[in-house]
Amino acid sequence: MTGVKHQKWWGWGVEGIGFSPEGKPNFAPFVRKQIGLDISEPGTPPKFEDLDVPAPVIAADLHDRLLGIVGERFLLEDDLDRIVHTFGKGVRDLIRIRRGDLRRVVDVVVYPADEAQVQRVVDTCVEADAVLIPFGGGSNIVGALEPEPTERRTVVSVDLGRMTKVLEIDDESGLARIQAGALGPQIEEQLGRRGWTMGHFPDSFTHSTLGGWIATRSTGMQSDKYGDIADIVKGLRAVRQGEVLALRPLPSTSSGPSVREMILGSEGRLGIITEAWVNVHRVPEVREIVGYFFPDFSSGLRAMKAIDDSDAHVTVSRVSDAPETQFSFATQKAQRGVQKIVMNGLFGYLKRRGWDTDQICLSYVGFEGGRRYVKQNQAIVKEIVKAHGGIVVGTGVGAVYDSKKFQVPYIRDFLLDRGATADVSETTTPWSNLQNLYDTTIEAVTQAFQKAQTQGFVMCHFAHSYHSGACLYFTFAIPDSDPDSTYRNYDLVKRAIQQNFMDTGATVSHHHGVGSEHSPWLAEDISPAGTHLQRVLLDGADPGHHFNPGKILHDGKPGVAVHSYDAPLPGGVPGTPVD
Amino acid sequence: MTGVKHQKWWGWGVEGIGFSPEGKPNFAPFVRKQIGLDISEPGTPPKFEDLDVPAPVIAADLHDRLLGIVGERFLLEDDLDRIVHTFGKGVRDLIRIRRGDLRRVVDVVVYPADEAQVQRVVDTCVEADAVLIPFGGGSNIVGALEPEPTERRTVVSVDLGRMTKVLEIDDESGLARIQAGALGPQIEEQLGRRGWTMGHFPDSFTHSTLGGWIATRSTGMQSDKYGDIADIVKGLRAVRQGEVLALRPLPSTSSGPSVREMILGSEGRLGIITEAWVNVHRVPEVREIVGYFFPDFSSGLRAMKAIDDSDAHVTVSRVSDAPETQFSFATQKAQRGVQKIVMNGLFGYLKRRGWDTDQICLSYVGFEGGRRYVKQNQAIVKEIVKAHGGIVVGTGVGAVYDSKKFQVPYIRDFLLDRGATADVSETTTPWSNLQNLYDTTIEAVTQAFQKAQTQGFVMCHFAHSYHSGACLYFTFAIPDSDPDSTYRNYDLVKRAIQQNFMDTGATVSHHHGVGSEHSPWLAEDISPAGTHLQRVLLDGADPGHHFNPGKILHDGKPGVAVHSYDAPLPGGVPGTPVD
Repeated sequence: MTGVKHQKWWGWGVEGIGFSPEGKPNFAPFVRKQIGLDISEPGTPPKFEDLDVPAPVIAADLHDRLLGIVGERFLLEDDLDRIVHTFGKGVRDLIRIRRGDLRRVVDVVVYPADEAQVQRVVDTCVEADAVLIPFGGGSNIVGALEPEPTERRTVVSVDLGRMTKVLEIDDESGLARIQAGALGPQIEEQLGRRGWTMGHFPDSFTHSTLGGWIATRSTGMQSDKYGDIADIVKGLRAVRQGEVLALRPLPSTSSGPSVREMILGSEGRLGIITEAWVNVHRVPEVREIVGYFFPDFSSGLRAMKAIDDSDAHVTVSRVSDAPETQFSFATQKAQRGVQKIVMNGLFGYLKRRGWDTDQICLSYVGFEGGRRYVKQNQAIVKEIVKAHGGIVVGTGVGAVYDSKKFQVPYIRDFLLDRGATADVSETTTPWSNLQNLYDTTIEAVTQAFQKAQTQGFVMCHFAHSYHSGACLYFTFAIPDSDPDSTYRNYDLVKRAIQQNFMDTGATVSHHHGVGSEHSPWLAEDISPAGTHLQRVLLDGADPGHHFNPGKILHDGKPGVAVHSYDAPLPGGVPGTPVD
Repeated sequence: MTGVKHQKWWGWGVEGIGFSPEGKPNFAPFVRKQIGLDISEPGTPPKFEDLDVPAPVIAADLHDRLLGIVGERFLLEDDLDRIVHTFGKGVRDLIRIRRGDLRRVVDVVVYPADEAQVQRVVDTCVEADAVLIPFGGGSNIVGALEPEPTERRTVVSVDLGRMTKVLEIDDESGLARIQAGALGPQIEEQLGRRGWTMGHFPDSFTHSTLGGWIATRSTGMQSDKYGDIADIVKGLRAVRQGEVLALRPLPSTSSGPSVREMILGSEGRLGIITEAWVNVHRVPEVREIVGYFFPDFSSGLRAMKAIDDSDAHVTVSRVSDAPETQFSFATQKAQRGVQKIVMNGLFGYLKRRGWDTDQICLSYVGFEGGRRYVKQNQAIVKEIVKAHGGIVVGTGVGAVYDSKKFQVPYIRDFLLDRGATADVSETTTPWSNLQNLYDTTIEAVTQAFQKAQTQGFVMCHFAHSYHSGACLYFTFAIPDSDPDSTYRNYDLVKRAIQQNFMDTGATVSHHHGVGSEHSPWLAEDISPAGTHLQRVLLDGADPGHHFNPGKILHDGKPGVAVHSYDAPLPGGVPGTPVD
């Protein structure tokens, strides 16, 4: 065995861990009310033996040469490993796997030990006219990992799972050199032992890697303080055919069009990232997440803007709309004793104050630093919350958020097991457009539900505050027992959301990347001249199309958006974009 | 007349303003001591009638078509305007002008009124196989404006000087849409009227434009708060052949390799920037620059790092080394009355405390925000300064800095008039390498002075604090009455500095850009694979080489650094890189 552990082939996280509604008495009624689904029946997870996995396509010569580089233990070609390395964890991936709709499965998986082996793998594969797809935690949800359906060449998945070390910490500069295959917990554990943190905690944290964060332009929940991964990465190395791109750690530079920013978001198309220099910070004296309630979403949004305008410095700023707040309550364990009395008392108090408790919006704000500094910032935020009609709920709720933050994807698998589909779309826009973006997206989704004649559910939260705007993160769910219509209805809703982002001046994605899922809208986002420049770069840097071909840009004419969701899948079902 | 005012053809700033040593009794002795130059003789500024300006090369058809687009008043072809638009204000430019060494002068200057006219100019010129060089404030100091010496096609300078408006302010988002030709003061005046500031104040502020800042990846002195121009610009428009690149204002996005970051630093090679959405901020309640003294440069550097590590938030952090501190004192007006007594008292006090007053290092730290917030931050910084052996000098010195900050380039012309050459090189590096970078650069310059057998002077300041490092900014001067050896000696020193940046892990430039001046070192900075990716982008996006060709990358093999300073100039003198 390689010693590298990956997620379930059919869903999120590792085998043995999943969502359970037990002890959460509000969950089943909530699901029944929102999407009319009865979750009392046991679910039916897929069985691997039901899959018909195509045989690998690889010449004996290439096989032997790869074996010569990584050794027998680190070249895998069994069906399970090939399936795990073919898909990310987008809902489209999961539906496809459950339907046995596999298409082009990667042929072989190699686990290089170090950058030198990556270089040999790359050079060998390019020479043999094979395709290389780098693989980190496999948590991608925009279709960036799957080979093109029509690919005839050998597809090699290059798993960075053996390259997980923090190689060096520059204590004086607050910089660490870390291998690209390191998962979030592996990074924080190694840094934490020496009193450091990277401060990058995306929702996928437990199952995503540094290399993946860079390749997709990831953002963590504490971005208000630590920045996006694009701000955190100061230098990097990436293996290309016959050369290593080596960018030294620099706080800032004016050395022409930024090559660092070309690799960020390149999704494997410009080479394989092997390591990066990242900003690291001393673990702060105090770290607190405080919970707040607002009487409605608009008040919450305005309060978050006021915090950004103030002299306060926060690490997290987040508000859920009313449906997401109710979802949070529904997934909580039953409260007992004092806690129950306090919460009931609080709701009673708010009702007497005239709040519509169905409209309550839960908010979290994070604080870090010295004790006095945290206190000062909390005082400023408290005043702002009060001025916007909100109340402080306290650090208890914050701690619950902190402990649950990585659990949500498991709920999606629980629902898929029971015939419901859930997915997400997130974006950013300037502050002045946030309310409009929210209203129009909810309206677009509601119309899509009607068109699909399904009882869907949509919820949203605000997060990631920047000087000029912020992120809105939508989650929706639809019930359907018929796999084909689920798929079609899912498409309808997803497309409605993405198209509304374009129509209202928001971006295709704030931190999930483009992959094949979002590429149909890219030219509308950055203009056809923008995708033209990307194409010039990506095609020019990889004229033989060996590096994860087909991602980010469709292979249509330069700069033309191909809304290929309309293209029929094999079997006549509208489906994923086909390049 | 066009109504657009430009700098002197032979030096910095506008006619009638210059440096005068009058009332600064310490200046002449300082210059004599440091570089052995007697400045008592009147200088000899160059005469325009001494120049032999080559006739413009332009076909009648192209001329008429450009005239048809911009109109007679906005197409200039007289020698003076052509010279002004051929050069930036690098010392190499100024020496060349003074020697009448003009080489390839631009053929015609057009002033489009708006983006539509820019598009017509671009399309017309590309169709006619002419070269386009965008022009803003003409303050570039890295050779990014001059046509290639061997260029045979018509060279059109596209002056953005009529496009100077703040078009729109999004009050709710803190964003402003501003035309690319707006100079610093034009921007701040228009924003200030509505209570906003962009907070971007490079040393060139009075004579540089938004478009120029973007094209070179500029940084302003308040970058600790407001960020580099790369952080400030959230959206932009740029005219390319037959298309407008349109990036909407977005706080953050994961839409593939960043096209925004391709245009930043593109120095005219990817098109002509016409406008940008930038972050703007409310003019703060309090804005103060406080002066400090440190007993030596190392203490100052360590204190700046401690400020960055602390919970304090500052807008400017700056320390001059001892020579630059003495230069500051030497350029001050004679002090009188109370001020003189206070300063003498202060120096006496420091001597009694055991300071070597020749080693004193002057530091400035800036603060902005609400009164209470500024006070808290000043208190933290004061403690840090004291802990590093420094003392608070007060806001008086800060105000002097603030009023003089844009004056320094005039001193260079004053010296050039008298046979001395001064230039700058600036870079960034991680904190752990700052002291080493300083020591080795001073050593390299000192050796270069010896090799050149000249009595040179070098000084340095620290500025622009980032989490992981900062900028060091070196200024040097050498005396020489023989134009040829001045030039050769200047080259020797400049090369020694840039090469030391490469050898010690610093970058070619923090905020001046690449142009032709720094391109010989680019591949050492970002690795040959890095310049290869830049070449793929720049050449692929402009296969006909119509947009400011030859800048950033040399036309050697991909990724090969060409140290073409060694190449002889016409006349046998080693000189500028020849592409």
